Amino acid sequence: MSAFASIPAPDAEVAAAARARQATLTKPPGSLGRLEDLSVWVASCQEACPPRQFERARVVVFAGDHGVTAAGVSAFPAEVTAQMVANFDAGGAAINVLAELAGAGVRVVDVAVDSDSPLSPAIGAHRVRRGSGNIAVEDALTAEEVDAAIQAGRDVADEEVDAGADLLIAGDMGIGNTTPATTLIAALTDAEPVAVVGRGTGVDDAGWARKTAAIRDALFRARPSMTDPVALLRICGGADLAAMAGFLAQAATRRTPVLLDGVVVGAAALTAERMAPGARLWWQAGHRSTEPAHTLALQRLGLEPIVDLGMRLGEGTGATVALSVLRAAVGTLASMATFSEAAVSDRAEP
Amino acid sequence: MSAFASIPAPDAEVAAAARARQATLTKPPGSLGRLEDLSVWVASCQEACPPRQFERARVVVFAGDHGVTAAGVSAFPAEVTAQMVANFDAGGAAINVLAELAGAGVRVVDVAVDSDSPLSPAIGAHRVRRGSGNIAVEDALTAEEVDAAIQAGRDVADEEVDAGADLLIAGDMGIGNTTPATTLIAALTDAEPVAVVGRGTGVDDAGWARKTAAIRDALFRARPSMTDPVALLRICGGADLAAMAGFLAQAATRRTPVLLDGVVVGAAALTAERMAPGARLWWQAGHRSTEPAHTLALQRLGLEPIVDLGMRLGEGTGATVALSVLRAAVGTLASMATFSEAAVSDRAEP
Repeated sequence: MSAFASIPAPDAEVAAAARARQATLTKPPGSLGRLEDLSVWVASCQEACPPRQFERARVVVFAGDHGVTAAGVSAFPAEVTAQMVANFDAGGAAINVLAELAGAGVRVVDVAVDSDSPLSPAIGAHRVRRGSGNIAVEDALTAEEVDAAIQAGRDVADEEVDAGADLLIAGDMGIGNTTPATTLIAALTDAEPVAVVGRGTGVDDAGWARKTAAIRDALFRARPSMTDPVALLRICGGADLAAMAGFLAQAATRRTPVLLDGVVVGAAALTAERMAPGARLWWQAGHRSTEPAHTLALQRLGLEPIVDLGMRLGEGTGATVALSVLRAAVGTLASMATFSEAAVSDRAEP
Repeated sequence: MSAFASIPAPDAEVAAAARARQATLTKPPGSLGRLEDLSVWVASCQEACPPRQFERARVVVFAGDHGVTAAGVSAFPAEVTAQMVANFDAGGAAINVLAELAGAGVRVVDVAVDSDSPLSPAIGAHRVRRGSGNIAVEDALTAEEVDAAIQAGRDVADEEVDAGADLLIAGDMGIGNTTPATTLIAALTDAEPVAVVGRGTGVDDAGWARKTAAIRDALFRARPSMTDPVALLRICGGADLAAMAGFLAQAATRRTPVLLDGVVVGAAALTAERMAPGARLWWQAGHRSTEPAHTLALQRLGLEPIVDLGMRLGEGTGATVALSVLRAAVGTLASMATFSEAAVSDRAEP
């Protein structure tokens, strides 16, 4: 894997022009709140004021299994990962429904599903291995595999941007994946596992205790590598998380705005920011998940969630709900009348 | 004005069926958070499980002026109300842009704009008077006018529902209208004005002090009528607020779900719930405005905002942003595959 080039920042001059345009629109200054900030961000990412409405928003769901499910960390059996890949392909999952409503396309990438073969050649084109290792007792990946997984994510980002994507969302699917995600966030923020371990898909008390123990063991093994994001992905992450990190960093390299999803994507984002400092300037936090580690990751990234709806599904669902809010932000800056156009008085009486 | 009939509750049996259906969908139970609750609510309002996606969502913007602007309570001159009605009609305002993105139609009702004549016969068909009185020194309306204004709102709700509206949003436009709105909320919650008076469109410190004084004076005049919602609308409300209250109560009578907007609609809603107890079961709070009185009104109504984006524009804008979230809720319950349909395992390993 080649290192990431220095990440450019969104255009500050266009941001200033967008702020100035906001002040001319027929509403009290600041009265659209967060929508105004988001509209300025999109304009600065696009280097265009007014900004353009998204014409090719894309959700990429990175699917992978995790050997740590053998430790009993999830409420669902590992076979569900492959079953859900088929559900995505058939259009029956939550992300399919939400993406259609938000005007986004969905693509599934099998990075490391634990099945004999990928569902289709297209879905499996970037498969790195069959399931990642059980991080409680072994490395998730070899050194070659972690590089291949990061590169797979970069390749997917390039494919999407080359095909015209103007807004990217990463989603996750993988039974057990909140265990490596929480481990990565704990490692990168020096947090105590018990303070950040959540219920994932809904594990019971005994399962939560097993999950916390697995995370402790993985963190112990990762201790010599706490400042090396690629090593952390290899030791206590997984192929799907590595691919997502590569995808998010590459999106920034390609100057393409991103809406982040929940705790798994948040873990990948925190790791990607360490690999490619400044990448976070190209991301907004779509939502806040109920997983405690997610809030911690967002705090470290300096990102404020757009919506907070008690969601914890993954797949990119929270980010896709937020896409409608982002479209609203773009729409107001792009299409509202100005005070002079509408002949509306823009000043207070003396 | 005739009294409101007893308000029916949304269908509890359909709500139970919707909860049961949620548990069969291909996701961990509860993982869509608030979306699940909202989907159950829509189903129970529609008496249909799965619920239907909204086909005719309608935003009705109630426009009216307020004599209290003479007291210097707003950052904008009163002439802006009529100018903005023209802006709505031309499609240049924030609500036009947001409604189009959310798939809703917009209608403007001139209840009491302070102009020689309404912009058009259609917009002015329900005009009650030219501007409401200055509540700092006089009643906003006569007894006949408050009845006519409430009836106007009821008539508009009936017109919309008869034309097929399946989701209603009330919006407001009126320079100075956060002054009577805050007065109503303070009266109905026994709150101290200084604790709940906000900046409205962005009034300065001196204007804020004038606004607070006007609200104190209006509350003093309303003191003998604190438990009479119609009297409060007459003494310290206004024709637009009375029409919105009638509209919101009538929507409930017509079993039509409503998304509430900000502080002005919130004041009308709190009043409408006093006129027609139980109406609130047909409403969801679209968003939380930055106006302090809005949070108080929502608390009293027992409603939790769907989004919280620092908005304070009115017009129905916050509710219309929330409409996309409500559509997402409906879409997931209506269109996701079940575990059995998708052949996904729905139980944990032992």
